[in-house]
Amino acid sequence: MRKRVVVTGLGGFIGRQCIEPLLARGYELHGLGRATRPIWLSSKAEWHQVDLLDDAAAALLVRSIRPSHFLHLAWYTAHGSYWRSPENATWVRVGIALMEAFAAAGGKRFVGAGSCAEYDWDYGFLSERISPTRPRTPFGRFKLALGEALHALADVNKLSFAWGRVFFVYGPHEQPGRLTASVIESLLQGRSIRATHGRQIRDFSHAADVGGAFVALLDSNVTGVVNVGSGRPTSVRELIERLVTLVGTEAIIDWGAVPLSADEPPLLVADVRRLCDEVGYSPQFGLNEGLLATLNDFRNAVQISALKK
Amino acid sequence: MRKRVVVTGLGGFIGRQCIEPLLARGYELHGLGRATRPIWLSSKAEWHQVDLLDDAAAALLVRSIRPSHFLHLAWYTAHGSYWRSPENATWVRVGIALMEAFAAAGGKRFVGAGSCAEYDWDYGFLSERISPTRPRTPFGRFKLALGEALHALADVNKLSFAWGRVFFVYGPHEQPGRLTASVIESLLQGRSIRATHGRQIRDFSHAADVGGAFVALLDSNVTGVVNVGSGRPTSVRELIERLVTLVGTEAIIDWGAVPLSADEPPLLVADVRRLCDEVGYSPQFGLNEGLLATLNDFRNAVQISALKK
Repeated sequence: MRKRVVVTGLGGFIGRQCIEPLLARGYELHGLGRATRPIWLSSKAEWHQVDLLDDAAAALLVRSIRPSHFLHLAWYTAHGSYWRSPENATWVRVGIALMEAFAAAGGKRFVGAGSCAEYDWDYGFLSERISPTRPRTPFGRFKLALGEALHALADVNKLSFAWGRVFFVYGPHEQPGRLTASVIESLLQGRSIRATHGRQIRDFSHAADVGGAFVALLDSNVTGVVNVGSGRPTSVRELIERLVTLVGTEAIIDWGAVPLSADEPPLLVADVRRLCDEVGYSPQFGLNEGLLATLNDFRNAVQISALKK
Repeated sequence: MRKRVVVTGLGGFIGRQCIEPLLARGYELHGLGRATRPIWLSSKAEWHQVDLLDDAAAALLVRSIRPSHFLHLAWYTAHGSYWRSPENATWVRVGIALMEAFAAAGGKRFVGAGSCAEYDWDYGFLSERISPTRPRTPFGRFKLALGEALHALADVNKLSFAWGRVFFVYGPHEQPGRLTASVIESLLQGRSIRATHGRQIRDFSHAADVGGAFVALLDSNVTGVVNVGSGRPTSVRELIERLVTLVGTEAIIDWGAVPLSADEPPLLVADVRRLCDEVGYSPQFGLNEGLLATLNDFRNAVQISALKK
């Protein structure tokens, strides 16, 4: 079967990491986005400039491409504000419209990006088949809403559908203000760090492993919800301390200076058996290697930006 | 506070039952729908002809009405096909667009109609705060999707929001083919009835009680999910046998002639403590009175239709 995939959000934190794996698996790759063709995009990939909020234009384009596969990663992601932005509702509508266009164009398999924020976080260890969904945030509710709507729409249109619930991600092109990016920036600038107590345990993955997992999922026949995480519990404290060691500076960390919100659960870890055993994806990066790679990417980016000045 | 409500689906099975309670509670009532003004509509109610699928036209109208309240009941409901129709997806998008318009128009409180099909039916006794959602059907998923999206959108727009999950409804204007309507029709025509074994237990309400409950919910400050049911377990067999008694005919019922789908759970009953204790709604009809009233409505409708011929 010819594999022609449309990808939204290709320029994003996770999307960029899907390009090489998609090409390596023999996909004809079509990126959709509002920007002009990104300079960093592989010459082997096609680019189509379109405003995804314009349902009719996006549908027309999807029909003209006639993709067999669709990887829908685009969402409103501005750090901080994305948890509560009304823009999230727009992306629910866009996601539905894109799947309708894809189905009408004869598409076969659709994979979308959900979030661990869809689960009831009181359960801590989050498993696709057992853990209830009960989002605490508007963002989590909107992601759950889109996942459910797409699941149903795929069902009635006889599309193969999977929904990857993303856990905690770090890596290159991370938005400033996010945990890993802000810690690295502070360390590189020799600033002291104000932190929570750091005992909360999370499931961290390098963005390349999230991208790799989405491509493996797309290329599989696995349907329904699939956690996209590492399955490894790591405390925030451990993550920060590893970064300090990797940077190799003396760092002043004020543990407990930032109060931890009562909403923050003690442990959030993905059950990754579906991803590992059914999809067959194995992560490339352990935590240390992933953080080291991220640190090197940040250092290179700083050098490049210094050279440009 | 002035109470001005926009109602969608006012001509539907449940919507019609909301008119008197809304007027009785002092609402200025504005019905929206594709049809011309229905002849049965109270002269005290306003009617606005609009295609709700036309987002822009509907938004403009909502802005011009400037409602304080919104009761969103409209959905695709064709008996049989509604479980799996792609039209459901359209109604997810319409619901989001209507709430966006309502928020932009300065609205305060929005109530929408969900379904017991959103729950994980394996739990049987379904409680808003405890029972997990895990729809088995596209319809259930689409309703869950809209409920979650509206909950989130209300949150970010600081609207008061409630979502009534409807259980099993019978009453006047019931679509032919649905359980109560088809049994009454068979009995009135003296036809024998092919039934399942009838041991499955469900939660039945008269449509007037569902309408009354929605209006009471709208008129309250209760937020989040609220079950709209009776809380009374009734087997399908009991419902059919009561109808036979009420009609007063000799009826041949072939119990077990229709196989019960493996998907059909043994018991589905609403926990109605939120509706009773928090909303303060008490049903008007017991099962016997509700079925009798429905039977009389059917007989009247048959007479009227006979007179017209």
